[in-house]
Amino acid sequence: MASSEKCLGKGSSPPGPVPKGCVRLYSMRFCPFAHRTRLVLHAKGIKHDTININLKDKPDWFLEKNPFGLVPVLETPEGQVIYESPITCDYLDEVYAEKKLLPADPFEKAQQKILLEQFSKVTPYFYKIPMARQNGEDTSKLEEEMKEKLKSLNETLARKKTKFFGGDSITMIDYMIWPWFERIEIYGLEHCMGGTAELKKWKERMLEDPAVKATMFPSEVYKGFYKTYAEGKPDYDYGL
Amino acid sequence: MASSEKCLGKGSSPPGPVPKGCVRLYSMRFCPFAHRTRLVLHAKGIKHDTININLKDKPDWFLEKNPFGLVPVLETPEGQVIYESPITCDYLDEVYAEKKLLPADPFEKAQQKILLEQFSKVTPYFYKIPMARQNGEDTSKLEEEMKEKLKSLNETLARKKTKFFGGDSITMIDYMIWPWFERIEIYGLEHCMGGTAELKKWKERMLEDPAVKATMFPSEVYKGFYKTYAEGKPDYDYGL
Repeated sequence: MASSEKCLGKGSSPPGPVPKGCVRLYSMRFCPFAHRTRLVLHAKGIKHDTININLKDKPDWFLEKNPFGLVPVLETPEGQVIYESPITCDYLDEVYAEKKLLPADPFEKAQQKILLEQFSKVTPYFYKIPMARQNGEDTSKLEEEMKEKLKSLNETLARKKTKFFGGDSITMIDYMIWPWFERIEIYGLEHCMGGTAELKKWKERMLEDPAVKATMFPSEVYKGFYKTYAEGKPDYDYGL
Repeated sequence: MASSEKCLGKGSSPPGPVPKGCVRLYSMRFCPFAHRTRLVLHAKGIKHDTININLKDKPDWFLEKNPFGLVPVLETPEGQVIYESPITCDYLDEVYAEKKLLPADPFEKAQQKILLEQFSKVTPYFYKIPMARQNGEDTSKLEEEMKEKLKSLNETLARKKTKFFGGDSITMIDYMIWPWFERIEIYGLEHCMGGTAELKKWKERMLEDPAVKATMFPSEVYKGFYKTYAEGKPDYDYGL
């Protein structure tokens, strides 16, 4: 795995220039947003190096690259900097012609973007529910809402009658939503996929994808990291 | 103005099919998000018709087209439906080759998307501050935050040393952020542009643009509408 370097925190030396013919990813090994970009890099076979960031104690040089302070960030040998996960993925798909992940047809592309917008209303539950549980709050209402949203996603797939969200092969939208499904058991939210038969089949198909396999951590590493995360002391280097 | 039709509400007859060679916009005359799409339609000279929606009492046929229930929505003669304002604008720019508004260069395009993301953290203040004022709350903290964000936008433009956000002519990003600046006086937030000399010059330049002129309402119409809006009884047909 390319992202096996220990993270850099405040006070660390800024990394050298990005090697020619290569793109750099600033990441955090367990971040689902950075995972989107990692999937696209792997699926398209793009030569890259990875620098992991300590998100609890960010280097100043990192905040200069991205004032939002978030990963993923891409950097080119020319010093161009790109951030926000869907923007990094679209950029990579445009620059690297091999294995296009976004459809060329404007309407199909728009449909993927609409679906992504719909899915952006699901991701907050992956934080809200575990957080509320930890505070001993009743999470049944949140869980119901999440179930409804996943059911709606399931219906979208059922209506399409395709193996993946953009057709019978994997396209961009599948990689955009995958990272949260990979983690759903870790978050203790698998039961929210009740009544989503098509989505479950999609999940099984995704697990066969080489890019998904290449960017995945073993379940025990995820569990170990999320334990430290839930305790408020995330060990970004867990398992290294 | 193409969008001069009275709005349709619950119980209204669904509109007929979209004429060949035309695209349809579902809009609300005063909505800043729909305004983005109106600007792009005008700037590119795209033949379109407009159906205004009563957003307080939405027709069922409209909710079937966009389950989010928001404008803008585009519809093609083939019955394809596209929503979410940046998605509608990108779609139009891809389908209609005349006067491309998005840069062809992937990095420049990514920069516009990053700026749009940055701006999406400004728009909520246009609602939060007037709302808080109406509730008699202290808005000084919110106003300070908004000022900081507008200053940061001003610095972006100052660093670029260009007349508009994407270069020396108007491109997509200018139209994406314009609708809120057109309304800033109406919202009583003009003072939040203090210390943003470049942004003010940009605003003056934008006012000269034909698409901006074509889609603008007279100040008294805006004021009249926002009065009804603030009172909780928006008159979407105000001034017709």
